[in-house]
Amino acid sequence: MESKQFSTPDVSALGRSQHETGSEDRVRLLLIENDPDDARRAREAFETVTTETEIEAATDGTEALEFLRERVEESEPIPDLVLLALDLPEVDGFEFLETVRDDEDLVQLPVLVLADSSASSDVNDSYERAANAYLAKPSDPEEFETVAGAIERFWFQRVSLPPHGF
Amino acid sequence: MESKQFSTPDVSALGRSQHETGSEDRVRLLLIENDPDDARRAREAFETVTTETEIEAATDGTEALEFLRERVEESEPIPDLVLLALDLPEVDGFEFLETVRDDEDLVQLPVLVLADSSASSDVNDSYERAANAYLAKPSDPEEFETVAGAIERFWFQRVSLPPHGF
Repeated sequence: MESKQFSTPDVSALGRSQHETGSEDRVRLLLIENDPDDARRAREAFETVTTETEIEAATDGTEALEFLRERVEESEPIPDLVLLALDLPEVDGFEFLETVRDDEDLVQLPVLVLADSSASSDVNDSYERAANAYLAKPSDPEEFETVAGAIERFWFQRVSLPPHGF
Repeated sequence: MESKQFSTPDVSALGRSQHETGSEDRVRLLLIENDPDDARRAREAFETVTTETEIEAATDGTEALEFLRERVEESEPIPDLVLLALDLPEVDGFEFLETVRDDEDLVQLPVLVLADSSASSDVNDSYERAANAYLAKPSDPEEFETVAGAIERFWFQRVSLPPHGF
């Protein structure tokens, strides 16, 4: 398995939100999004939910995979949930999914695709690669909060997420 | 691939709810549950949601797989979503998941585990077998409606489900 050092320049965009500290009840989210406007909208939307949310961000699949593998190697908790755009440079969303599902340390990671389109082929190809759910980005940027709220109510409040350190 | 006739006695428990007819906007749910009380609670809970829901029911994994394969063979729509108990006779929930994920006609099928426990090992093993989400049955039977509502708001109203006839 390929693995690079986390401190290489191409992972410099990874950064924690202001919710870094807090109780263990907080949810760790990894946002993989190349569009800076959509990344900002998603971050801001999760600031409006009740659940304390720690957001890591990556702008492509390579960066995200490096971040996850570093976490595994250092026995640090991996994220509770991934929000994944499909249209990414280098390693795209589909390839990210394939790699994660083929990695025994990451196979259980819940990945929600949050894509620009709801084209049948994209939906189909995402579920085929074991995406946990496929959501189309809302056409109205204001509606990101609605999406974040829906994710919170189902995934943070109702679902049993994979145990940390699995 | 093993395939039996749908009309054999061991699949006789499969039956449609009263929501059989209706628009194409209805959601087709396959409930795989061996406990009759929980099956009834789940059925009744989905009668309270706004989305028109057609429920098929199976009491173990063998029966559910036979139903799904018959649907595929006859080019009938397969369910939009599966609710899966883990503790089932013959083919249990884990084996059902493994079989579905290994079948090119069923791999995309969204499967929500609805289990008696929230034991870490069950949660872990379910995600490892590409369950889309793991939910513990509510301790209070009245709360099945809350679960049905949470599933509706996320999966029926927000998510793009796999296209029919994939």
